[in-house]
Amino acid sequence: MKPREFRQIVREGLFTGTTLNVCEGYVMANLAVVPKEYAFDFLLFCVNNPHSCPLLDVTQPGDPRPLKIAPDADLRTDLPKYRVFQHGELGDEPTDIVKYWRDDFVAFILGATGALHPLFEGANLRFRTTGVHKTNIECGPSGPFRGQMLVTCRLFPSTQEAVRAVQISSRYPGLHGAPIHIGDPSVIGVDLQQTYSKLDPSARVAPPAPNEIALFWGCGVTPQSVAEDAKLPIFISHKAGHMFFPDVLTEELAAI
Amino acid sequence: MKPREFRQIVREGLFTGTTLNVCEGYVMANLAVVPKEYAFDFLLFCVNNPHSCPLLDVTQPGDPRPLKIAPDADLRTDLPKYRVFQHGELGDEPTDIVKYWRDDFVAFILGATGALHPLFEGANLRFRTTGVHKTNIECGPSGPFRGQMLVTCRLFPSTQEAVRAVQISSRYPGLHGAPIHIGDPSVIGVDLQQTYSKLDPSARVAPPAPNEIALFWGCGVTPQSVAEDAKLPIFISHKAGHMFFPDVLTEELAAI
Repeated sequence: MKPREFRQIVREGLFTGTTLNVCEGYVMANLAVVPKEYAFDFLLFCVNNPHSCPLLDVTQPGDPRPLKIAPDADLRTDLPKYRVFQHGELGDEPTDIVKYWRDDFVAFILGATGALHPLFEGANLRFRTTGVHKTNIECGPSGPFRGQMLVTCRLFPSTQEAVRAVQISSRYPGLHGAPIHIGDPSVIGVDLQQTYSKLDPSARVAPPAPNEIALFWGCGVTPQSVAEDAKLPIFISHKAGHMFFPDVLTEELAAI
Repeated sequence: MKPREFRQIVREGLFTGTTLNVCEGYVMANLAVVPKEYAFDFLLFCVNNPHSCPLLDVTQPGDPRPLKIAPDADLRTDLPKYRVFQHGELGDEPTDIVKYWRDDFVAFILGATGALHPLFEGANLRFRTTGVHKTNIECGPSGPFRGQMLVTCRLFPSTQEAVRAVQISSRYPGLHGAPIHIGDPSVIGVDLQQTYSKLDPSARVAPPAPNEIALFWGCGVTPQSVAEDAKLPIFISHKAGHMFFPDVLTEELAAI
């Protein structure tokens, strides 16, 4: 399915589920919406932490259309599920945010790591994921936005496959780019048995085998996590797993 | 000379000239300073036009230190010459901006294309430059910042060398990255005999020979040009050719 068709179905309220394996070959993206008052600080946070926050598009204040990556999309209706935070507390999980939208809202669209999986599989790489983990790496702060980097981890069964995964992901800075760490998880404060969200379905994975190499990538939940911690009067994101699909093929993002 | 030593000499007022061939192997950078009120729009302009505005660092409001790329530098004193624009008019060309500095100033440091030359020369590429040209390509606008992309042009005497220049520059998105156009200048509205600034010393170059291939890169004068046109109450930049040197080796910016 093309992203445009999928967005139409979502807009009509006919799909509110998770977006795994939708729109094959296309980029999937995270959403973060903040009032204009906080937009400079949040944009600078993204610029300062590109491994966590690969910017694909930023809207003009009040305009719900991401003109660069999906000009006919409406970010208020085209994601299956949203989360609305007020002063850091989750207040609502609506299927659209029309009633919350304001003239001073700025939306940030951030590349999601999931689009790397087909690339890894396309190169015959074997790997397993362990979920999202909190590290001890401090993000570059900006205004009220500060906190520790979250990462995704993938375990590869050979050094050759790990090296190839570095090469492939390096080509896609818009999808978090190269890994931020390789090897011993404890060096960055991670215990693979502990995931950021207890609801994470990939939690409680088998511990790494002796031959397995752990690679860690910046995770798009980081900006969401720091925005929650900043306790803005209002902050809106997509609900985990309920992503936005722009009109951008993964291969269009390849840097080289 | 190391950037730190050079900055010290400039800070003491002992050097106010152009910075060609200073600090070999290091990145050189453009400066743009806007009041916080305009910082979101200007930052978004940079994000939307990465070929013109490769962000190396953005300061916190009021802080003259670029913490990411030269933490002990002072952007008010460490460039040889500045330009101060008021409502779009050039008002002053001081050797420091201490008396203009305000608590709400945000400084943007943008990678400059000059650091590519040693890389091209290091790969034995032959080329000549024709100066800075205005194209008919509209930049992605943001708030009051809009206008046509400026480019630098380099002529290569063989296709092999042109291809190699694409490969090499693609590795450095922080130095404007890959070319934005190859070949016929008129396609992007450029006449190589016409340069953006009549003061440009490389103006009136010999026209391209039949074997020469023109490559065009986004130019760091673009954000300066759109900021002037936006006629902000105050806007400060470096004076052309009087660059800032951060503690960053060119090779540190290589993306792959």
